[in-house]
Amino acid sequence: MAAFSLSQRARDAADQPISYLMAEALRNPGLISLAAGFVDSQSLPAAATARHMAELLAEPAAARAALQYGTTQGEPRLRQLLFEHLAKLDGVPIDRMPGSADDIVVTTGSQQLLHVLADLLVDPGDIVICGWPSYFVFTGALTAFGAATRAVDLDHAGMAPEALEATLRQLQHGGLLPRVKIVYVCSYHQNPTGLTLGEDRRPRILDIVRRFSDLAGHRILLVEDAAYRELTYDGTPPPSIRRYDTTGDHVALLQTFSKPFAPGLKAGYGLLPTGLVEHAILNKGGRDFGSSNLCQHLLGRVIASGDFDRHVQTLRGVYRAKRDAMLAALDRGFAGVEGVSWTRPTGGLYVWLTLPQAIDTGRHGPLFAHALRAGVLFVPGEYCYPPDPTRTVPRSTIRLSFGVTDPAGIADGIERLASAVRAVLP
Amino acid sequence: MAAFSLSQRARDAADQPISYLMAEALRNPGLISLAAGFVDSQSLPAAATARHMAELLAEPAAARAALQYGTTQGEPRLRQLLFEHLAKLDGVPIDRMPGSADDIVVTTGSQQLLHVLADLLVDPGDIVICGWPSYFVFTGALTAFGAATRAVDLDHAGMAPEALEATLRQLQHGGLLPRVKIVYVCSYHQNPTGLTLGEDRRPRILDIVRRFSDLAGHRILLVEDAAYRELTYDGTPPPSIRRYDTTGDHVALLQTFSKPFAPGLKAGYGLLPTGLVEHAILNKGGRDFGSSNLCQHLLGRVIASGDFDRHVQTLRGVYRAKRDAMLAALDRGFAGVEGVSWTRPTGGLYVWLTLPQAIDTGRHGPLFAHALRAGVLFVPGEYCYPPDPTRTVPRSTIRLSFGVTDPAGIADGIERLASAVRAVLP
Repeated sequence: MAAFSLSQRARDAADQPISYLMAEALRNPGLISLAAGFVDSQSLPAAATARHMAELLAEPAAARAALQYGTTQGEPRLRQLLFEHLAKLDGVPIDRMPGSADDIVVTTGSQQLLHVLADLLVDPGDIVICGWPSYFVFTGALTAFGAATRAVDLDHAGMAPEALEATLRQLQHGGLLPRVKIVYVCSYHQNPTGLTLGEDRRPRILDIVRRFSDLAGHRILLVEDAAYRELTYDGTPPPSIRRYDTTGDHVALLQTFSKPFAPGLKAGYGLLPTGLVEHAILNKGGRDFGSSNLCQHLLGRVIASGDFDRHVQTLRGVYRAKRDAMLAALDRGFAGVEGVSWTRPTGGLYVWLTLPQAIDTGRHGPLFAHALRAGVLFVPGEYCYPPDPTRTVPRSTIRLSFGVTDPAGIADGIERLASAVRAVLP
Repeated sequence: MAAFSLSQRARDAADQPISYLMAEALRNPGLISLAAGFVDSQSLPAAATARHMAELLAEPAAARAALQYGTTQGEPRLRQLLFEHLAKLDGVPIDRMPGSADDIVVTTGSQQLLHVLADLLVDPGDIVICGWPSYFVFTGALTAFGAATRAVDLDHAGMAPEALEATLRQLQHGGLLPRVKIVYVCSYHQNPTGLTLGEDRRPRILDIVRRFSDLAGHRILLVEDAAYRELTYDGTPPPSIRRYDTTGDHVALLQTFSKPFAPGLKAGYGLLPTGLVEHAILNKGGRDFGSSNLCQHLLGRVIASGDFDRHVQTLRGVYRAKRDAMLAALDRGFAGVEGVSWTRPTGGLYVWLTLPQAIDTGRHGPLFAHALRAGVLFVPGEYCYPPDPTRTVPRSTIRLSFGVTDPAGIADGIERLASAVRAVLP
């Protein structure tokens, strides 16, 4: 039996290493998983979902509208509520907010919109600039489009504007500026590091993208992935980068219901810059002509009732306790171990752990095996580095997630991890 | 402000003409729409959805599982139920059904799976063979992949095996067989003609695809789009083409919940041939890593309870009456008009109307304007012909849908259309 003759894109598609980790977790139900990006299960909004779903389906006209086809772009009332939500988060009066609900597209999670935007802009050999490290499902998907990625270092306040500028300058000198299509920034509690882009850096990064767009002869899209924005546990998060894009021309601001409400609804959305929304709708039209309309009608009610905001408040308490449990356990577990450091995120689901360089955290290294035997699973940091040919992937980092496990389990898991690290220390 | 520099795919993406028709329907709420492929609104399953959703969300463990992330491939219990559903439709005992639930992928409508399969197999210049006419959202999406389409004539029993063989033979002689990746057949109550592929043609078409796969040196995928399979109003529909694929190697059988249950859930699925499911999962993983998990958990309950089958029974009665109303109105309205003919479908949502060649049914032709003034909207048949460079698009056909409008409105709409046709007859 001859094989199918796959397209170039299918042949270039990289296996997502996360599949292996998920399978490993399923094979070992006793494992404490500090790997999965899943959310806390106990706090999922079953009651609010049940109440709004019952009300929606009890009204004949509303039920029929929700069970019928919707539009590719997304339910109009939901888009209006989302536009108001984004204005409120940025502290901008609705009448002074650039753009409108017609610039919003609702997608099957924000991942679908990341994929659509890459599809719209990236030809093989085109360049996407992202953080070092970055969200690996997006950078993995980019490989199927034949994108080249160039990474920019992160420090305590996320992507450094100087480093971004230097990278763009270097590409300019190499004559590659015309190939730069997207600058990708996860601006709140970044996956995988938990780092938030500093407030003062936001207008500067936008300004750099704007200036290099002029030099490139086309608009470079600044994709602001704000998936973890609502999950802020300390203080008030800074305004979005999009807040500074007063003409609404450069930034695509992407958010989701998966983290702050329920991933099972699989709904994300983006506020797109001028000139892109028609293309995004056309592209999504070919893919599926619209995400679940029932889920969108439900979410409109969830937001309008105030239940979304109330649920976010609850989640902040739940995850703050988990984050605190993880940081306290790290303080205990790695006390006195030299060369170990970790981030102290103010939100999101992740802590980024850096071990001494001699320790290989990879799936085939000794630490991973020790940790599995000790009963704890983590994401090797090497998966989070996009394939930048000018760089060498560090082998001694780890992404830890405090999303799924309860505080006692987190403390236990970190203790197991710390003992595994001690066992492999030179 | 410079423009974004779009990818080749985005520049090749064709506008979907259906957007114009939908906008036209919105601008003229008094119009009788015989255009939209929407389903009957009155019969949408609000009560069954409400009941199962309430039960699902009232059980804490079930609610949490449905509101959490699912898998990219789709909910395992739902996939098992779908595998059993397909076996039952084909009258095959479950233990003799080739493949398994692990060969099923659940997608955001079956459209997403059509798009994924094209993405997996089609490089620019590759060839997809389809009916003349065909489902235009799929053939439209193919243009973004740079596919060349070659069309095969349909007669009263759908695609003729001899015509398919002649087309493949011609491609072989032109040295183009290595570029043929997909043969696309809508096997039940085809969109747009309402024609069902004859039972005796099914194994023959499979056999042709198998033989030319051997000649091509790779497996050509036979995509069997069975979106309208459950909506059969007269007699028992024939087994699927996939029924004859006893090794499960050649056919991807695609079905959906949009037509036989509720489009608002946006759930479709496919039973894929060996060697393709891993690629499909990887591809969908990059797009969205899974469709709405809540909708999938709901649908598992809908099927297991028997409510799906009961709803399909109800729909058969509803649409049979609509189909009968349309055929009776056509008999009345076009009595004595020469050169007019139409299909008499045994299921689905569409009747295909052929007018005298002198009548241009296009959007900018006189009939369309007359019909709009008379208050009736239809889909010009020219949209349904894929871009085959070897053929000339007929200008005098129309796709009529009896899905949305009630029987009285259908009768009224056809009367208006008939008077518009009489007005433009030479």
